[in-house]
Amino acid sequence: MRAVDIIQKKRDGGELSSAEIAYLIQGYTRGEIPDYQMSAWAMAVYFQGMNARETGDLTLEMAKSGDQIDLSPIAGIKVDKHSTGGVGDKTTVVLAPLVAAAGVPVAKMSGRGLGHTGGTLDKLESIAGFSVEMDREDFFAQVGRLGAAVIGQSGNITPADKKLYALRDVTATVDSIPLIASSVMSKKIAAGADAIVLDVKTGSGAFMKTLEDSIALAQAMVDIGTQLGRHTVAVISDMDQPLGYGIGNALEIKEGIETLNGRGPKDLEEVCLILGSQMLLLGGKAKDEAEARSILSGHIGDGSALAKFREMVAAQGGDASMIDEPALLPSARLHREVKAAAGGYIEAIQAEEIGVAAMLLGAGRETKESVIDLGVGIVLARKVGDRVEAGDTLAVLHINDASASQVEEAEAKVLEAYRLAAQPVAAPPLVYAIVTKDGVTRF
Amino acid sequence: MRAVDIIQKKRDGGELSSAEIAYLIQGYTRGEIPDYQMSAWAMAVYFQGMNARETGDLTLEMAKSGDQIDLSPIAGIKVDKHSTGGVGDKTTVVLAPLVAAAGVPVAKMSGRGLGHTGGTLDKLESIAGFSVEMDREDFFAQVGRLGAAVIGQSGNITPADKKLYALRDVTATVDSIPLIASSVMSKKIAAGADAIVLDVKTGSGAFMKTLEDSIALAQAMVDIGTQLGRHTVAVISDMDQPLGYGIGNALEIKEGIETLNGRGPKDLEEVCLILGSQMLLLGGKAKDEAEARSILSGHIGDGSALAKFREMVAAQGGDASMIDEPALLPSARLHREVKAAAGGYIEAIQAEEIGVAAMLLGAGRETKESVIDLGVGIVLARKVGDRVEAGDTLAVLHINDASASQVEEAEAKVLEAYRLAAQPVAAPPLVYAIVTKDGVTRF
Repeated sequence: MRAVDIIQKKRDGGELSSAEIAYLIQGYTRGEIPDYQMSAWAMAVYFQGMNARETGDLTLEMAKSGDQIDLSPIAGIKVDKHSTGGVGDKTTVVLAPLVAAAGVPVAKMSGRGLGHTGGTLDKLESIAGFSVEMDREDFFAQVGRLGAAVIGQSGNITPADKKLYALRDVTATVDSIPLIASSVMSKKIAAGADAIVLDVKTGSGAFMKTLEDSIALAQAMVDIGTQLGRHTVAVISDMDQPLGYGIGNALEIKEGIETLNGRGPKDLEEVCLILGSQMLLLGGKAKDEAEARSILSGHIGDGSALAKFREMVAAQGGDASMIDEPALLPSARLHREVKAAAGGYIEAIQAEEIGVAAMLLGAGRETKESVIDLGVGIVLARKVGDRVEAGDTLAVLHINDASASQVEEAEAKVLEAYRLAAQPVAAPPLVYAIVTKDGVTRF
Repeated sequence: MRAVDIIQKKRDGGELSSAEIAYLIQGYTRGEIPDYQMSAWAMAVYFQGMNARETGDLTLEMAKSGDQIDLSPIAGIKVDKHSTGGVGDKTTVVLAPLVAAAGVPVAKMSGRGLGHTGGTLDKLESIAGFSVEMDREDFFAQVGRLGAAVIGQSGNITPADKKLYALRDVTATVDSIPLIASSVMSKKIAAGADAIVLDVKTGSGAFMKTLEDSIALAQAMVDIGTQLGRHTVAVISDMDQPLGYGIGNALEIKEGIETLNGRGPKDLEEVCLILGSQMLLLGGKAKDEAEARSILSGHIGDGSALAKFREMVAAQGGDASMIDEPALLPSARLHREVKAAAGGYIEAIQAEEIGVAAMLLGAGRETKESVIDLGVGIVLARKVGDRVEAGDTLAVLHINDASASQVEEAEAKVLEAYRLAAQPVAAPPLVYAIVTKDGVTRF
């Protein structure tokens, strides 16, 4: 077998065999197949695609390329949740304790963000003392005891995916649905979940800008999960504006706590209830969505979800008093209101620009070496559909050490992000569709 | 400017600017743009193509990437000839002295072959003492004095093309017309010719299997030449069977001498007259094809073309007596006739298989390190259109040191190469079309 022949077969629209995919990924992982052949192959895949069988094989080979976590020591159906990424997305912070309270074990390995805001690990580290490093035995023990733990990836998970993703990033081969789908799913498969709920964001602030592309990506991932024996469901949720109001690490933890308290933003709560319901269904803890929703609402209403979060934080060394007094979380010394220059109806809030503004204030990493300021960020004051007058506050910048020019740039970005219309605008739907192995349900 | 953005632009079907192409090729030549970006870009070009302007820019950048030969010290219009490669193609051996005899200076830098048979340099080295190494001043002086010299490439010609070609070879990105066309033309431009006649082979034994692809490649190359101010004409000639009868280095020199003598195979003579006429027209030595043809036939008929070859050989240190007594050229000790197993009409002679058979006998290089046996090869006895009976000789293997199993394999390849039909078959045309900047003339 030769890599050049495999590249040519794909270039010419052929279907690669399982053996050919294994040869490629194993050879690449071992460094025997060079980057220049993999990038040419990835570009051929960009143009010719891969069918479900090939995509499943690619996923499995990448999952097998490094450590594979065996979660079987933890009792119950382990349900993982993954978001394709959006601005203001703090659903993991809410969902881990919430579905754990409902009896579905959450053994979550998260990443750090490179980009607009920190990742889930950075957000959780806003809580003083919270540790995301834990050896495997302690991790399993905590999930077994409390039902939830969120830790950083350790060990050598999907090295083939890491290597291929870095290569795709610099060769314009990121935007390929089978390659995106296999990248996401390989990590989920290697992380050992029995079932997977995917939150596929769609809209201007999402990786997938159109609903049809988002559905296609969701279907590709659900197909992979099905082929590899993992119950997988995908929720297509809106990212035509940030989720909730807070963007920034401690700001998002605060909003997560409010949501667990039943006092969070309606959009964030609703998305959490929809995703959480799917997790309960896959975890076998509810017979239908209505029951799942009622169980979750119950755990918010009676304080048990927040109690679970408190337990989880304490178990991971965090200062649980901050959960009850969020004012103790890192915060910003300065605040600056961004005001509307003219009146109108908000028709869109470009999430990416809000994200960039937050990064300028220090909330995210521009490079791996950047140090995050956990207290800074942006709190939106108005969302899509709202009426504003000239001079009304659109958002508030939370500032610590950003320079005057960074603050000015952030303010300009926020202003740019807000698009106003003369006519009333309806608030966008929160969820557009749910994709399962049986098909697509659109709302 | 970033390479990844240029790759993406091409991937998305955009037209690259001159500055973008310069950035890519200059960066790649300097080693600043890595192979993995160039291979992804080449695959994007494979799918999206390049227009004439982009292809011209790419050619110029590759031509400028290393030494550029300035042929202006040689008086007259220097016309280069280039073949896209075929089996039994000894036209350069005939054309260099023939058109020089007609007053068009030929300053030819040739390559060594890697493949079925040797390149023009290997063929010429069949003549004892013939040297293809010459410094630039001597080269110019010989062309000035005699009108012809054929030497090996020296110096650092089109390093960008060398690097990119080697990369394309292992990334399944060879078969792209703009990339093939710019690769060929960059070498011609760097070699300094004023005008270029291209011999684009078409058919089973050619790189381009179909007439339409061959014409498209020819048009791309003519467009490049036109854009870069070089008169360029392409002749589309047949490679559904080898050209002439001899395949192998000294065997081809012998056939070349016979052709210069007026006793060569009709197909080889005709192709040489057609290509040579185009060279005379571009060189300003004839007003139309009829006149050009008559001039060339005259130089064959009166012995002046052969005399020019004798002069050229002597000037390059070769034993000119071999020109008059070709039996002195290297030859084979053993001969084996390959006989038809059944009767029929020959409908095709797969040139590639004949080439592989010749290589098995030692006539070509399998790797750069292979040593060529200049005396061995194959002489065809029958060509397309001929009627044969079972037991008739199809071809004769000329053998020196090949092992019994190599000879057997070569014989089997030759037998495979000959395709017989029950019904009479017409001999294929020698030339299908001529492509100039004004369009395509089909025959």
